[in-house]
Amino acid sequence: MHDEFAKIDWLKKRFEKGTVSPEVVVGIGDDAAVVDFGSPSTVVTVDAHVEDVHFRRELISCRELGTRALIAAASDVWAMASNPSGAVVALTLPEAFADEDFRDLIEGIAEASELTGARIIGGNLSRGRSLSITTTVFGSLAEEAITRDGARPGDRIYVTGELGAAPLGLAILEAGASNLEHAESFVARWRRPPIHGRVVRELAQTATAAIDVSDGCLQDLQHVCAGSSVGAVIETSSIPTARGYREICTALDLDPVELALTGGEDYELLFTARPDAEVRLSATPIGTIVEGSEVRVLDSEGQPIELGRTGYR
Amino acid sequence: MHDEFAKIDWLKKRFEKGTVSPEVVVGIGDDAAVVDFGSPSTVVTVDAHVEDVHFRRELISCRELGTRALIAAASDVWAMASNPSGAVVALTLPEAFADEDFRDLIEGIAEASELTGARIIGGNLSRGRSLSITTTVFGSLAEEAITRDGARPGDRIYVTGELGAAPLGLAILEAGASNLEHAESFVARWRRPPIHGRVVRELAQTATAAIDVSDGCLQDLQHVCAGSSVGAVIETSSIPTARGYREICTALDLDPVELALTGGEDYELLFTARPDAEVRLSATPIGTIVEGSEVRVLDSEGQPIELGRTGYR
Repeated sequence: MHDEFAKIDWLKKRFEKGTVSPEVVVGIGDDAAVVDFGSPSTVVTVDAHVEDVHFRRELISCRELGTRALIAAASDVWAMASNPSGAVVALTLPEAFADEDFRDLIEGIAEASELTGARIIGGNLSRGRSLSITTTVFGSLAEEAITRDGARPGDRIYVTGELGAAPLGLAILEAGASNLEHAESFVARWRRPPIHGRVVRELAQTATAAIDVSDGCLQDLQHVCAGSSVGAVIETSSIPTARGYREICTALDLDPVELALTGGEDYELLFTARPDAEVRLSATPIGTIVEGSEVRVLDSEGQPIELGRTGYR
Repeated sequence: MHDEFAKIDWLKKRFEKGTVSPEVVVGIGDDAAVVDFGSPSTVVTVDAHVEDVHFRRELISCRELGTRALIAAASDVWAMASNPSGAVVALTLPEAFADEDFRDLIEGIAEASELTGARIIGGNLSRGRSLSITTTVFGSLAEEAITRDGARPGDRIYVTGELGAAPLGLAILEAGASNLEHAESFVARWRRPPIHGRVVRELAQTATAAIDVSDGCLQDLQHVCAGSSVGAVIETSSIPTARGYREICTALDLDPVELALTGGEDYELLFTARPDAEVRLSATPIGTIVEGSEVRVLDSEGQPIELGRTGYR
C-alpha cells in the first residue's frame, strides 16, 4: 500500500459506512466531501503543501507559497462546481522560520483568500521540522455538485486553460533556464495556479463530471473514468498548450505531449459534457468518453501512443 | 513574533474583516470558528499533531496516536458546547512509514471517530520528513456557542476531571518510571484525552465561558480572562488531581501544583458559571472570576504564589 491511491481506496472502504448518512452527500474519494449542514449544502476539502515534497523554498517566495497553497486547495472546490466561501489553515513552521517569512506567507494566503473568496475562518500554528501548509476549504453549493461519476460514453472531454504549463515552469526553475523566451510566464503559472471562480456556474450547468488537473491530465481523467465506469480517448493534436511551450520543451529535452498529459499541478479543470451540450465556458475539447475502462492516447495520425509515465503522485 | 500567541493576535487582526460577515459567527481567536451555513450552525476547528513536537513515536503506538489526534481536535468543538459531527484528516507520512503503522493510525482515527461522533468525511495524504496529523473537525450547534468572552466577576471557575494527569503521564514515560504505583493510569491519560460528548448539553445551559485545557490550566484561563476582560483567582487547595498524583510528582521531583496548573494536554474543559447556577455536570470549582485582568493563584493559606512557568506553547 505504498501507493497513495491504494491507500485512498482502502480508506474509502474503511469509512464507507460514513457515506450512508443523509448529510454526507459525497464522502471520501472525490475532489471534496459534500456535507448537507442544512441548506445550502457545503463542500469541504483539505490539501497539504509540504516543504521538499510540494515545493522547495529556493524556488518560490513565502508570499507566493501562501497564495499557491490556498488556490491549490480551492481548486478541489471549484472542481465540484462550487465556489469557495471559507478556509481554515494549519501551518507547521520550522524553528528558524523568520517573522518576515511568516508575514509574507500570511499575506500570500490573504491574497488568495481575496482571489478565491475563501474567507479564513480559523487555523492552527505548530512547530515542525519542515514548513507545511494544510488548508481546509469550504464552499456552498447552489445546485448539485459535479462529481467524478457522471461521464457517459459519447461525452466530450474538455480542459480549461493550457496543459503542461505549470510542470514546465517547475522544470524551467529546476534547470535554471528562466532566461529562455516565454520562460517567465511558465514559471509564474507554476507559482500561481489559475482561479476558476468565474466558470463555476457554467460548469454546474454544463458538465456531467469534473475534476481538477493536479496529478496530471491522464491520471485525473483516469479517476473520472474509474468513477464513471467508462473509458476515454485523448487526441494529442487537440491538447492546448501555451505560446513557447514546445520550444522550451525542446530546449529542456522534455517530451511536450508527455509533460502536458502527465505533468502535475496545472490545476486546470477537466470536465465532460454531453456531445450536444452548448459549452459556453472557455475550454478546449481534447477527446471523447467511450465504453470500457481504458484511457487511450492517439497521436495526430490516430495511432495509439504509450507514455512513459501516467502522472504525479 | 516568535510567540505563537503574538502570531495569533496578529492573524486575528489581519483577518478581522472576515469576522464581520453574518455567516462567521465566531472567527479566529476562539477554540473554533462558527460558520452559519444555514441552520443549524456549524463549528469548525483544525488541530495538528506533529512528530517530535506533540509526540515521540517511541512513547505512543500509531493506533493510540490516531485516536489522540482526533480527540484532541474534537476537544475544541466540545469547548464551544457543540458535539463533533464530521472531520477531515490530512496525514503527512515519512518515506519509511510502514503499511501496518498506517493501518494502525487509521484504525485509531476510526476509533476516535466512533468515540467523538466525528464522521471522517475526507482527507489528504502526503509524504513528508516527519509524521503529522492535521484534523479539521466540524460540529453542529443546537444553541449558541459558549465562547471565551462571557465570564463575569463573581462567576465560579470549574474544571472537568483532574488536572496534571496527562503531563504527569508524559513525564512518567520520559523518566521511564512506568513501574511506579498508579503510573499506568497517568500514561493512559496522556495517550488518550477524555471524551466530553456527554457534558456538552449541560455545558451549553450552564457555562458563561468555556475553553479546553490544552496549553495548561493557567494559560487557558488567561485566554478566558483576556476574552472576557476580567481577572481570576485560583485556589490551589481546590485543584482536582487523581489518585497517586502527588506521590508520583514527589518521586519524579515535580511540583504538583505547578504541573497541574501549567502542564499541557489535559484536554479537560474549563468553564465559568454564575455563582447561583446549578452545575449538574461533573466538575470541580477551582476559583472565582474577579474584576481586573490578572490571574492569581492562592495557596491553602490564601497567600499568592508565583509559578515558574505559565503554560505549554
